[in-house]
Amino acid sequence: MTPFDSFRLTPIGYIKKEEDKAYLEVLPQYAPALLGLEGFTHLWVLCWFHENDRPAARAVLQVHPRRDLANPLTGVFACRAPERPNPLGLTACRILKITGNLLEVAGLDARDGSPIVDLKPYIPQGDSIPEAATPEWLKRPRPSGKD
Amino acid sequence: MTPFDSFRLTPIGYIKKEEDKAYLEVLPQYAPALLGLEGFTHLWVLCWFHENDRPAARAVLQVHPRRDLANPLTGVFACRAPERPNPLGLTACRILKITGNLLEVAGLDARDGSPIVDLKPYIPQGDSIPEAATPEWLKRPRPSGKD
Repeated sequence: MTPFDSFRLTPIGYIKKEEDKAYLEVLPQYAPALLGLEGFTHLWVLCWFHENDRPAARAVLQVHPRRDLANPLTGVFACRAPERPNPLGLTACRILKITGNLLEVAGLDARDGSPIVDLKPYIPQGDSIPEAATPEWLKRPRPSGKD
Repeated sequence: MTPFDSFRLTPIGYIKKEEDKAYLEVLPQYAPALLGLEGFTHLWVLCWFHENDRPAARAVLQVHPRRDLANPLTGVFACRAPERPNPLGLTACRILKITGNLLEVAGLDARDGSPIVDLKPYIPQGDSIPEAATPEWLKRPRPSGKD
């Protein structure tokens, strides 16, 4: 166990957005990994913020969330900013339709072309915590940007 | 955009379990990234299933969840098995105490010594989906193993 390890991720698919529709295009060789997903209504998408996979963005440790200076300076582990040491994105979405290796989804907060590195079913028993509390800045109106 | 890309992750800390307590030990150089986390009650931990970072385990695309043959053969993107193309683990936990770069947490489903690759605050507005439906096998009693 050394802090100098490094791990390798490979894309298992890509985000595809067309007009008002959003798709997860799973690479054909991973299609067998989707077996049984039709029994779930929701899905976690772990994607790679490829535009932030640069040394400068990966060195950022604190930001003003949503690039709004009115929000307090916040550690990147205390917000969902794409600038972070490992630029992983996590977003839940609803499964609309599964056609082979193509998933149509709703509510996906990720950019067109982003590599997907993992998909996991949403299991409310462990994943849903409606009572979780958040700080005041998250209750402010959200500008057009995202984090 | 090519399917042959590969991305590099570095550990930002390690899971530490002691008797009945669980800790996230963030590497000191990342401690500034925790600023503001005290405003949240819950946290996502993204860890690396390091014991499954082997070509054979990363080639597994279907399993019987929880290693229980009574559960249907299921794609790894439709369950939370540690055997998967990118062995990322995702688990929500409750923040009990933050002391510098050491976080005491509760409800963490991860093994002692696992590398942590990201921490994200739990934001119920997007993360909590109590109505999400799951298949029948998830309603069966869970044996001692995990997936």
